[in-house]
Amino acid sequence: MFWFDLTWDEVDRLDKDKVVVVLPIGSCEQHSLHLPLGMDTYSVIHMSRDLVEKFGGKVVVLPPLWFGASEHHMDFPGTITLSNETLISVIKDVVKSVVKHGFKKILILNGHGGNTDPVKIALRDLRVEENINVELVNPWTLADEEIKKILESEIWGHACEFETSEAMYIIPDKVRSEKIRDPNLNLELWNKIKKRNIPWHTKDITDTGSLGYPTKASREKGEKLYRAMFDKVVSIVEELLG
Amino acid sequence: MFWFDLTWDEVDRLDKDKVVVVLPIGSCEQHSLHLPLGMDTYSVIHMSRDLVEKFGGKVVVLPPLWFGASEHHMDFPGTITLSNETLISVIKDVVKSVVKHGFKKILILNGHGGNTDPVKIALRDLRVEENINVELVNPWTLADEEIKKILESEIWGHACEFETSEAMYIIPDKVRSEKIRDPNLNLELWNKIKKRNIPWHTKDITDTGSLGYPTKASREKGEKLYRAMFDKVVSIVEELLG
Amino acid sequence: MFWFDLTWDEVDRLDKDKVVVVLPIGSCEQHSLHLPLGMDTYSVIHMSRDLVEKFGGKVVVLPPLWFGASEHHMDFPGTITLSNETLISVIKDVVKSVVKHGFKKILILNGHGGNTDPVKIALRDLRVEENINVELVNPWTLADEEIKKILESEIWGHACEFETSEAMYIIPDKVRSEKIRDPNLNLELWNKIKKRNIPWHTKDITDTGSLGYPTKASREKGEKLYRAMFDKVVSIVEELLG
Amino acid sequence: MFWFDLTWDEVDRLDKDKVVVVLPIGSCEQHSLHLPLGMDTYSVIHMSRDLVEKFGGKVVVLPPLWFGASEHHMDFPGTITLSNETLISVIKDVVKSVVKHGFKKILILNGHGGNTDPVKIALRDLRVEENINVELVNPWTLADEEIKKILESEIWGHACEFETSEAMYIIPDKVRSEKIRDPNLNLELWNKIKKRNIPWHTKDITDTGSLGYPTKASREKGEKLYRAMFDKVVSIVEELLG
Amino acid sequence: MFWFDLTWDEVDRLDKDKVVVVLPIGSCEQHSLHLPLGMDTYSVIHMSRDLVEKFGGKVVVLPPLWFGASEHHMDFPGTITLSNETLISVIKDVVKSVVKHGFKKILILNGHGGNTDPVKIALRDLRVEENINVELVNPWTLADEEIKKILESEIWGHACEFETSEAMYIIPDKVRSEKIRDPNLNLELWNKIKKRNIPWHTKDITDTGSLGYPTKASREKGEKLYRAMFDKVVSIVEELLG
Amino acid sequence: MFWFDLTWDEVDRLDKDKVVVVLPIGSCEQHSLHLPLGMDTYSVIHMSRDLVEKFGGKVVVLPPLWFGASEHHMDFPGTITLSNETLISVIKDVVKSVVKHGFKKILILNGHGGNTDPVKIALRDLRVEENINVELVNPWTLADEEIKKILESEIWGHACEFETSEAMYIIPDKVRSEKIRDPNLNLELWNKIKKRNIPWHTKDITDTGSLGYPTKASREKGEKLYRAMFDKVVSIVEELLG
Repeated sequence: MFWFDLTWDEVDRLDKDKVVVVLPIGSCEQHSLHLPLGMDTYSVIHMSRDLVEKFGGKVVVLPPLWFGASEHHMDFPGTITLSNETLISVIKDVVKSVVKHGFKKILILNGHGGNTDPVKIALRDLRVEENINVELVNPWTLADEEIKKILESEIWGHACEFETSEAMYIIPDKVRSEKIRDPNLNLELWNKIKKRNIPWHTKDITDTGSLGYPTKASREKGEKLYRAMFDKVVSIVEELLG
Repeated sequence: MFWFDLTWDEVDRLDKDKVVVVLPIGSCEQHSLHLPLGMDTYSVIHMSRDLVEKFGGKVVVLPPLWFGASEHHMDFPGTITLSNETLISVIKDVVKSVVKHGFKKILILNGHGGNTDPVKIALRDLRVEENINVELVNPWTLADEEIKKILESEIWGHACEFETSEAMYIIPDKVRSEKIRDPNLNLELWNKIKKRNIPWHTKDITDTGSLGYPTKASREKGEKLYRAMFDKVVSIVEELLG
Repeated sequence: MFWFDLTWDEVDRLDKDKVVVVLPIGSCEQHSLHLPLGMDTYSVIHMSRDLVEKFGGKVVVLPPLWFGASEHHMDFPGTITLSNETLISVIKDVVKSVVKHGFKKILILNGHGGNTDPVKIALRDLRVEENINVELVNPWTLADEEIKKILESEIWGHACEFETSEAMYIIPDKVRSEKIRDPNLNLELWNKIKKRNIPWHTKDITDTGSLGYPTKASREKGEKLYRAMFDKVVSIVEELLG
Repeated sequence: MFWFDLTWDEVDRLDKDKVVVVLPIGSCEQHSLHLPLGMDTYSVIHMSRDLVEKFGGKVVVLPPLWFGASEHHMDFPGTITLSNETLISVIKDVVKSVVKHGFKKILILNGHGGNTDPVKIALRDLRVEENINVELVNPWTLADEEIKKILESEIWGHACEFETSEAMYIIPDKVRSEKIRDPNLNLELWNKIKKRNIPWHTKDITDTGSLGYPTKASREKGEKLYRAMFDKVVSIVEELLG
Repeated sequence: MFWFDLTWDEVDRLDKDKVVVVLPIGSCEQHSLHLPLGMDTYSVIHMSRDLVEKFGGKVVVLPPLWFGASEHHMDFPGTITLSNETLISVIKDVVKSVVKHGFKKILILNGHGGNTDPVKIALRDLRVEENINVELVNPWTLADEEIKKILESEIWGHACEFETSEAMYIIPDKVRSEKIRDPNLNLELWNKIKKRNIPWHTKDITDTGSLGYPTKASREKGEKLYRAMFDKVVSIVEELLG
Repeated sequence: MFWFDLTWDEVDRLDKDKVVVVLPIGSCEQHSLHLPLGMDTYSVIHMSRDLVEKFGGKVVVLPPLWFGASEHHMDFPGTITLSNETLISVIKDVVKSVVKHGFKKILILNGHGGNTDPVKIALRDLRVEENINVELVNPWTLADEEIKKILESEIWGHACEFETSEAMYIIPDKVRSEKIRDPNLNLELWNKIKKRNIPWHTKDITDTGSLGYPTKASREKGEKLYRAMFDKVVSIVEELLG
């Protein structure tokens, strides 16, 4: 069920104490030469549709937010970024509206790693201001172990074997297969960044925008990856539904 | 052409001095008992698609913003609102990103009257901070005269003859025809508000959420209304393309 | 009655449920070569005095705000501008103070078109935060039809036939008659701006600062114009007084 | 010369390196039972007029700000307060506008002690952001020694012997002589506050709103007090003029 | 070398391109019944001293920040919290000051997990605004593997076997040994929170404030834990020194 | 008693209605060639320790804030400044936390004149928002008369006879005696600034950073100065304890 396709009286008749409300948030940012800028948002939209299909009226999906915190990708044309402060405000305003209408169970389904910090701030503020626990769901983190088993490459993160495979599965028509090529990576810098808390500009690490090796991607892997992540999200929803 | 479906190098190869970039913004707010909460956003998405079809690579459409400034509808469940301040920040952040990538011609294609004030503030600020003229396009204002000729009712504005007709044309499957009924309107208050600058809460004026008479709506009117508005938007795009 | 000339106990004894409180706001901005920078504020001060004279103790006038949102005139020396954000804060702070003292009926009497957007934001915020409807009164909009009948020129807006006539009536000593001359106007740009929502810098449209033709102005027209506007404001006050 | 009575070209022809620009700021707050709410603003307006008379075209006076930071008087009806943050923004916006037009010598002529803290913050910020030294002029502080010699009472500060005398001299028609009476003062608290940095609410110290003894006031003292303060302001202006 | 013990000319003579500047940040928050509120700050101060001892003039330590983002501990008396927004501002202001004086290598040495989100926001903003990479160093994350080997308990995080052991080593006099007792933990909730992104209030998980089992702590473990963490920090400093 | 050395239950057992809570705030800013950057903070830390010693459990000292509002010293390397806005937020956040835990008597013990304006703003805001009177204690102002009797030089203020003497008494090991020399002062400017409200940059007045004559300093004077100030602070604490 999609929130934006309901009428106000239909929302009003939902079981507000039980229904799980999902806010899909993505980004509009460079995804190398072969994936569309909207990749992260497509991912959470796809997953949202599957949640609706699986859970019927027990899950309601809010409209997606197509913009995220992507200032580190701004050297690549096409990237649109909200400031961290703006993203925090958007998340807080949307959740406060949902809370005002009486809903108790809210998930942020996130498709973009760069959103994690500001969304966590928003949720901490909401915990104090609205006395509500809203969970941030990063599917790739939840399924971290499963993902590692599926992938050949140890390095993955952005427009890589992982994300390209997922795209081949969920938006195959939008993958520019002929443009897939592995980047020149500054591995030393990337390894450092992955393990530590250092802000970075993507262009300092990769020439194409890929952080990882998209040539290793396949639709088959994509299906497995997507399933692994979706299963994790499903189990969180089931837990919330009780 | 949809911005979010391009890759970064494809955006880079666009003719940044000539291409018209369109940001569709809507709302997620009550639209009476028979129209979905996402109506305003559906309207600008539909129009954006038609712009892309008509102008091919000369128009690029950014991802839509599904949330607007709708605090006056918050008494009706399902309405999500950004604060005026947040909406101003979102518009400024998105436009600044587009400007940073070198684009010169930007339109905000707006589907929700409540967005007008904050978006105008954003555009005035951008005029000073970025030295760029971004136009806010409210299709129903541009086609005001044509719309009046098509409509039977003198009172229109929200989930009314006008908007319901448009919905019957662009999203017929989402119209709950069986739930269409005319509201009990506080006409004295509504007439006052329409002519003057008074903030209001929708519930003070209407019981269903409709501001106008949706029983007078028809798909035929909807097509005419949509065409009248689209033609106006087309002429602005043509003017910008030069 | 002027709020700032009362003592605190006199304010306390006012009938707070009935009295209409008026906040006059203007600007300090270029008004071509022949009108003083304070023109907009003089206009609302003059009208405020006439309201006091007409309504006696039923209308109380707050101190005027001499600064407005005039960033589009900043290319002309002497213009002082508040940011949109600052103006919003001032309006909200003043109204909140008045509300705290128990008054229920508040009007913003505005002399400057550039204030409209930010004041509307302030009033929408106040509607939510203070549960009060404060009306923004733009006299020239209310009397739009009457004004058009009085004027010879179709183009009017700033330091023009309209405003110069008004000045000849309310502040004749401050009009530099010998410096009145019609501007070189970029009519194409101005016509576009008037009908659409495009931010602009005044210097792109006019060389003198006039938007319209002040040579057509006369004191007689000024009196008629002023009367037409004042009558509209009076009827709003009467409606509020009940 | 009054800034708001000039036209933009007249401002442009001023000697921007030499002319002293004065911004009078006051308050709209309780001044006991016998003085009008606008007392502080009347004081700086009166002084501004005398400056213009004395210095002719060498001093230009901006429009007055009738609202100040008066949250400590809000228990008394009629008091209007800007938040500290708003007042800081207003001062910064106005000064930045004046600086943008090329002026180098700016004074804030202040009539209200409660404005001192926020204005000092604004001026410190402006020192960094605009590289300009703007002076805050509190006439009663500059003439502190002279004032003490004129007054009988040791306790003075607000609507007292000092301020009532000044009012009798500059706005005699607005003084409610028949309502002048000395307050019941919490002297212990007031003495503590005067010497130390403790925020307070006026109502905790006085029943009428007077901080001091207005029954000791006279027009003669008022003239002397005003002259003493004006002389100090004059000497600062002369120093700036060089 | 401690920044605050130097004079300005001594700072000026430092090799600004090479010296590593360290900002220690902690918290003032509940640490169960047996550890002082300042524990996190003591930890980074101790580590800072050891860094100075080890690296001599190559490392300069800024004054510590004793307050952090601890809103989730506010149910326990004594906890002081900065809002996320305030902490972001403090970090940005301090780093900007250091950058203004010409230093290139800056580390935030953090003793409190709750600071991670806001500090990361600050550093991302600084990356854009100041074009500088400042690293956030969380010693317990860097030494995660070593710590797990030393500890008996699988559950650790706050005032637990881990932190109590560290305290016994670095501030033995401040440990209330007689008050050490294991808490009643809501293990189900805590396990969920540790793996997922859910904001929480500490009191929902523990009665004493301990998240883990302090009875298992020892000074010997503390020394090993501290050494493991310190070694990691040392290696980062060495890498920066080049 | 030091707040940060207590455990949460120990704070909880304090007599919250009676105990005086002290927040020491200083700065990290240039103090000429002979005093350390942390001088102001050392001063309030020293005084805090003596308060604890004198009053035992009746006074609790919060962790010190080592950073202040020092933008006027930024031309001298090593100076760290918080913006006025950030400092206001820190003070408000810390005091609000203390108030939330039930304490009624709070003092800000300040070592840096530049903090006065923003802290006063914070305390005025807190007076309104939290209905609490928090006192800002500037020891050098309280003991102004005594200090003048002890000093030889009429000019004092920063890294001068006054402050250097105090340093010789409280942190003798940190005074670079061999580097003490009197500055070249712009006396005309300094005299003007001392009496009036003009923002300044320290470098415009002094070459070394000293505002006054440190060669006149002695440990004996330092002890007397410190005692004079401490006695004043003690009497305020005693008054609060009742």
